[in-house]
This record gives sequence, structure tokens and C-alpha cells, in this order.
Amino acid sequence: MYNVIIIGGNAAGCKTAARLNRICSNYHITIIEKKPFLSVSSCGLPYYAGGDIDDLFDLMKTSYGTVRDEKYFHDVKGVNVLANTEVKKLIEENQEVVCFNINNKETFTLRYDALILATGAEPKAPSFPYRSSPAVSFFHSLSDSKKFREAAQKGKVNKAVIIGGGFIGCEMMETLTSLWGIDTILIEKENSLLPECLDPEISYFLESCIQSDKIQLMLSKSVTKIETGENGKPEVFFDNEQKINSDYVFFCLGVKPNSRLASDSNIKTGKYGGIIVDEQMRTSLPNVWAAGDCVEIKNLITGKPDYFSFGSLANRMGRIAADSISGKTVSFKGSAGTFSLKLFENIIGSTGLIEKKALKFGFKTASVIGCWPDRPDYYPEMKTLFGKLVYEKGSSRLLGLQLIGEGEVTRYIDVFSELLSRNSTVEDLVNLEHGYTPAHSSPVSPLNNLGYMAINQECERINNFNPLMLSSFKGIFIDVREPYEIEYRKSG
Amino acid sequence: MYNVIIIGGNAAGCKTAARLNRICSNYHITIIEKKPFLSVSSCGLPYYAGGDIDDLFDLMKTSYGTVRDEKYFHDVKGVNVLANTEVKKLIEENQEVVCFNINNKETFTLRYDALILATGAEPKAPSFPYRSSPAVSFFHSLSDSKKFREAAQKGKVNKAVIIGGGFIGCEMMETLTSLWGIDTILIEKENSLLPECLDPEISYFLESCIQSDKIQLMLSKSVTKIETGENGKPEVFFDNEQKINSDYVFFCLGVKPNSRLASDSNIKTGKYGGIIVDEQMRTSLPNVWAAGDCVEIKNLITGKPDYFSFGSLANRMGRIAADSISGKTVSFKGSAGTFSLKLFENIIGSTGLIEKKALKFGFKTASVIGCWPDRPDYYPEMKTLFGKLVYEKGSSRLLGLQLIGEGEVTRYIDVFSELLSRNSTVEDLVNLEHGYTPAHSSPVSPLNNLGYMAINQECERINNFNPLMLSSFKGIFIDVREPYEIEYRKSG
Repeated sequence: MYNVIIIGGNAAGCKTAARLNRICSNYHITIIEKKPFLSVSSCGLPYYAGGDIDDLFDLMKTSYGTVRDEKYFHDVKGVNVLANTEVKKLIEENQEVVCFNINNKETFTLRYDALILATGAEPKAPSFPYRSSPAVSFFHSLSDSKKFREAAQKGKVNKAVIIGGGFIGCEMMETLTSLWGIDTILIEKENSLLPECLDPEISYFLESCIQSDKIQLMLSKSVTKIETGENGKPEVFFDNEQKINSDYVFFCLGVKPNSRLASDSNIKTGKYGGIIVDEQMRTSLPNVWAAGDCVEIKNLITGKPDYFSFGSLANRMGRIAADSISGKTVSFKGSAGTFSLKLFENIIGSTGLIEKKALKFGFKTASVIGCWPDRPDYYPEMKTLFGKLVYEKGSSRLLGLQLIGEGEVTRYIDVFSELLSRNSTVEDLVNLEHGYTPAHSSPVSPLNNLGYMAINQECERINNFNPLMLSSFKGIFIDVREPYEIEYRKSG
Repeated sequence: MYNVIIIGGNAAGCKTAARLNRICSNYHITIIEKKPFLSVSSCGLPYYAGGDIDDLFDLMKTSYGTVRDEKYFHDVKGVNVLANTEVKKLIEENQEVVCFNINNKETFTLRYDALILATGAEPKAPSFPYRSSPAVSFFHSLSDSKKFREAAQKGKVNKAVIIGGGFIGCEMMETLTSLWGIDTILIEKENSLLPECLDPEISYFLESCIQSDKIQLMLSKSVTKIETGENGKPEVFFDNEQKINSDYVFFCLGVKPNSRLASDSNIKTGKYGGIIVDEQMRTSLPNVWAAGDCVEIKNLITGKPDYFSFGSLANRMGRIAADSISGKTVSFKGSAGTFSLKLFENIIGSTGLIEKKALKFGFKTASVIGCWPDRPDYYPEMKTLFGKLVYEKGSSRLLGLQLIGEGEVTRYIDVFSELLSRNSTVEDLVNLEHGYTPAHSSPVSPLNNLGYMAINQECERINNFNPLMLSSFKGIFIDVREPYEIEYRKSG
């Protein structure tokens, strides 16, 4: 019997198991998961916390409403599941893992022919001191989400502080204010929201769209400590000893690979702390694969290792790990770091490198910024799109795209993501053919437009003006619009 | 003075003029347009007819509300416009065009250094006899749209017949029933809607979604003649002398290139009647270019000439014509025939070849059909997507994609369109990285899924089942769902 052991029962682990069972039905496959549940859509946790999703089990259901529990995996996918079980150690020479059953405290050993590490990510811990308290919480697991929702439902949370303005911090900001009406302060140490994924001028636009009187953004502020006040509630201190009192504090500081077991077992990890794998998801140890949020992957633009924690990538890696174990030759080429996010009315998307990151990696960058109606002006549901293209000066190679708007955003992000996987140039943008219909697009797509702008900038010296240049600009602006044109645009 | 004359003042002509004025500001540029208006967004005509757009001039406005009329083109774009002027003849040896002013009936001659034919498309005429009448109309021009709207507003149209189930026929079906509540009969001679763009099994799905009691679809029916009844209203006859009475009849039989002037001038035209151009939009006559709906272009999948009438392509061709005239070396590579359409709640998209067309062009085709939630099941706004992938057996080269659903459709069509421009294979589908967020997508995109299905079919003999196989299927279906799963799906 060929024994496959998968450590971790979320996206990557479950995908590996299901795929492997389909293509190698004679393998004996076991998923070991520390937590009581598996196959939890953790991207849905903010929606559960906010009440958009009512039943926690909805995050674990198939399209037909069956909960993906141990029985489901056994009966439908032919996979054994050991939940509430932690892998403590990997004994390389025996090809064994030492397991600990959290319920009955028993320790036991399992032998593997192939081992897959799918241990996922864990939240980054704060660099400042804080006191543990039920009202000071990460937002990472099902239980974090459940705990908060129960407190909110009981009316115990009137004011909350979110520390960190990345994905989860932004999503939580919406969750707290939209459904629960909680006064929310978001503290971010950089000077803009989503600083890893958006350049400041795009972030500024996003920030200007967040108009709720329930939200206070505190940018460029560093938290120094969190204490518990006399009323038992958390007190957040920052900078020069200023203090914020609140009922609940969230750490949303990003995630890092959970690779402890790997590094304890002398499996190579990289600069970001993720497990190093080849294109077939093989680790540095024979017969050990890794997939999902615990690994580092190649950034398709820099060509260097990078770290992305996305369920979509985890799924694809899981399939590749399974194929690789079965002897098929498939490859995971890397990622452009493509993401999208809905925040209040806006959809934000980014793929490839933001200019800040491109400069850090030594690219000689240029950029163009534009804004367009996403459908013809006459179409009633037209929304404005705002975007930035980053490319390499000289070669005109595409480096990255950021878009924000209330309408058609994700389609252009998806197309650009595809272009990035092939070393495309701005010329490829102008040759793009999109599905044009007034209900969903203009005849000239924003990607065509950005391409034209970049070509005009490179070849015809029509330089693009970036809002960030305003402070150092020494000319005169002439607004050639007629008064009625200004009014028209305001009302449209 | 270098004289550029552009015949035709819509998408391709106006784009050529504007671009050329920007890059060659010393050229003298003239647009000659037969109609009184120019730069009309004709894709918006159904929305005007239906009342979504109130002011006809909205179809000719810039983003700032200025009507793009003769004065606008002269003052803003530096382009002269001769409206209400028809070009009667092209005198090659003198590089002259003979023009006729429709208002004052004067004939005059203009000399060109470069001539651009942007004469657009015209509606295909019926092959059956019909009597001209104000209530029997094409739906192609601004005046067609205005005439119908006025009749509808006066309550004169209670019942209408649309002949032809292509784009315009389908759009008109929605226009007539949704706003005006008109009893509408659509007659199509093929056995499905949009027969040029969708394979029958996808059309059938579309047809099943059209549930209005105002609509009657009559497929596989050929109109034989149209007469005027005793009450002065049109009578549509079809097949075995059946007759339909109505208040209004629309011919929606598709369009063909308006290339009469070209063929009269010995400019080469092709199989579809369109002007033949090279990748720089040059015709067979020296110093004469052509762009937009009057030309044939290369189909990127078949490599053969084809005909597509899309405003998006016309815009891109116009720019290329201008660049080419100015001496820049740019190319129009062709088209994948990418389109999208909103029809009631559904968005329909198609790119590349439908299976029927692929077979006609000699491809050894295979296909997979699937249906998926377009967002995670738990997400409240989740919609179902239904799609068909056509690829080449053996090489696994991508040939075409058709998608239909109420949610995320256009993004996958756009990405696939890009893939088609590069001879991609099903392997490229599984490597696609999309912007994943539960608000707009599932972790595994429909394109990933279609790729997996095709690979499973090619490499693991898991054959896809097509609904069209039902009639000839000789096995037993086993539904392994639990009753609660069936109920769950119905309610979801």
C-alpha cells in the first residue's frame, strides 16, 4: 500500500487529497488536521463575522449543501481524515510522522511514502507588547470570527480598533461599520491603505471614497503597546503616548508561512520564511512535497522568490503536488500576485509589481495614470475607473497594473495577469480584443487606453501627469472646459 | 498641404481623423459623411429606442457633454467635416473624389494625398419580397431608432415581429418587451438564437432563460413574404402560408460591409464583400486605406479572412490607419471575433470559433461543457455560470469559448480572447491566475476548471457529457445526490 500523508486540511491539502484519489485510486491517503474542522473557506470569514453569511457551516459546504467533514472526505473523496490531530515531528530516515491526538492526548506514529506539507499561514504577531485578553484578537481562524460575532451580537462592541490596513484590516473595517455600526479606528503604520498592493496615489483615491462617519483612518501611526484599562477594556497606545480606548482590538498585520515543522525537519525555507519548493512542489527532502500558503513561489515579474497567500494559488498548487506525486510532469510556474478586493462600493485590483516594489527590485520604471468611463458615457450604469500602469522604460515590458472603480475592474486585472505571465509589452495592450457591449464596456478598453498612453509617453513625449507631482509642479494649470462641461461631469 | 480625406464619420473614420491630427498636425484632414450627424454610437441605438437613454444627442456626446458635431471636430480635433455629403466616385489617376452635397444638390471634386474608406456596414436586405411601409423597418440608423420610438410613444405598437435572432434581433426583443410591453414575436430561420455566435446547447440554455409572456420565439421558421393588410398593417407570411399580423416589423438580418464605392473603384473586395486590406489597413489602390466595418480582417484562429462588425475593432483599426498614413509601422493582426451581450438578466459572451464553425473550417474539434458557481457557494450574490470550451483534439489548441450567466462572464471572455491571439492550449488555461476575492470569483476560475476538464478528457478518458448527446444516449443515469442536496441546490 502506497501511503500518502497530507498535513493540513484546507485549500492546498484537500485539493491534493481529492486529486490524488482520483488519479491514483489505489493510494491510501490521510489528511491530518490540527483543528476540528477542515476545508474551511477562510476568505469567507469576514462575511460570516459581518453577518452576510449566517451559518458558519456554509463555509464548509459543497455546492449541494453537504458539509465537507471527515465523513464526506471518507465517503466521497476516499480520503481518511484525522482531525484534532497535530503532527509534532517528522522522522526523515524512517519516513514517519509523529502525531498527537489533541482530544485523547495520545501520541502515535504514521509511515509515509509521500508526505505533503500544507500547513498554511499564520497571522504575523505584533512587534509591540500587548496583554492577552478576549477583546484583543487576531482575525485568522473560524474561532476568531465566531468570538467576535458573538460579542457584536450581544451589543458588547461599540468601538473597535483595527491595527493594520492590509486586505484583512480593510475588509474588517467594512464588516464592523456596515453591519454592526461599530465606530472603527484603523491604524496603519505606512502612509496609505493596502501599502503592499497599491501605490500611494491609488490608495489616496481609495481613502477618499471611504466616507463613513463611523470610520477614522489613522495613517503613518505606529502602535507602541496595548494595555488593559481599569474597566477591563483594551487601551491602544501609539507614538507620543496617545491612547485610544475601545471595546475590541483586531491585529490585522498580515500573514506569514506556517513552516515550523518544515524548518524543524531541516527542510529548506526561504527569505520570507516559506518552504522552498521546485516547480513540481517538491521540498528539499526526498518524498516530501509542500503546497499552499506555507511555501514561497516565484514572482513571475522579478523572477525571484516571493510570498503570496491566496486560496486560488493554494488550489492550483495542491493539484500540481498531486500530479507530481503520481508521476505526471506538470509545473507551477509562479505567480504575478494578482488580487482583487471589494471595499464598500469599490472594487480594487492589482497584479504584478506596484511602482514602489518595482523600483526596489531595480527596474527602471515608468508609469501612466488614467481615468475612464467603464461603459459608454450614455449608458446609465456607467462607472468611472481609475488606474495605473507600471512598465519598464526602454523595453516597455509590462510590470504591473492597479485599478479601482465601482464597475468593471476584475476583467482587466485578469487579462493583465495573463499578459504578465508571458513577458508582454505595452504593444500587447493596444492589441487586446475585449468583449464589447455597452452594458459592460466601452469600445476602447482601459487596457487599450493605458497602452496608448504609454506609447504616447515613450514615443511622442506626451508625458503623463501623476497627482503626486502636484506638490513639486511649477507651471500653470489651464482648465479649458466650458462651465457647462464641468457641471455635466459632476452630475454624470 | 498634405490632404487627407476620410469617407465616413463614425467610429473608424473619426478615430483616424483625431489620431492623425494629433500626430501630423500639419495635415489638412476632411471627413465626408453622407448623414447629417457623425460620431454616433450606433451600439447605443437599442437603448435609445427602449428609453434607457432619453436624449438622442447623448449618443454623440463626449464625457463632458459636448456634442461631437462639425464645430466640435473643427475646433477641438482640427478636422473639417462635410456632413450631408456623399462621395459618388473615386478618380484614381487624379487622386480625386467626386462629392455631392445632399442639401444644395451641388457636385464638387476634392483632391487627396491619402484617402481612407470608413464607409461602415449596412443592414442585409431580406431575401423574400416585402412591401415598403413606415411599419416595416430595418434597425440600423438613428432615424430607424427615432421612428420606432415615436410610434411606440404614441401607443401605436402593441404587437411587433422581429425577423432574425442575431445580436440586434435579441437586443430589440428586450427593448420592445421590457420598456414598451409590446407583444413580440421573434422569427429565426436557424433552430437557435444567435446561431453565428453560440452552439445550439448554449443557445438552448439562453432560450430557457427568456421567460417573458410577452415573447414568442419561432425558431426554424423562414419568412416567405411580407404584405400590407387591409388595415394598412404588415402581414408576415412564413412556411406553409401561415400569417402573423402585427403593428411593426423589424428586419434584423445582420449587416454586411458597405463597400460599393470601393468595388466601383476597382479596389479589391473579398468573399464577405468587405474591402481587402493588409495589416496596415492599406487597400489594393495606392494611397487608399480602409478601416472599420467596411473591411474584412483576418480571423486569428482560422488564419483566413473573416468579417466582424464591432465598434471596438473599428476604433483600433482607425488608429492603425492613421499611424500607417503617418509612416509609423504598426499592425492590425486580426480578430478572434470576441463579443458580449446583455440580454435580460443574462450576460452572454463568445470568443473564437463555435464548434459548428470550427468543424466547417476543418478543425478536428473536441469540447467540454460545465457549470459552476461564479463566486463561492456561500457568497450571497453567487450566480451560476454555464460554459463551453472548444479545442482541437490532439494539439489541445484552444479554439473558442462560450459563456452565459448573470454574473461574472466578460472577464473570462476577455482573458480567453487574449489567449486566442497567441495560439494557446488547454495547459495555458490551468496556469491562469485570476484576481480572486469571494465578492467576484471562486478560488478556481471557470477557465481553470474548463482546462482541467479538457485535460481529464484528453489524458484520463473522463469524457465530458454534452446535453445534445441525450437523445442518442443508451445508458442509465444515476443521480447520487441525497434529496436534501437537490432541494438545497434549487433554493440556492
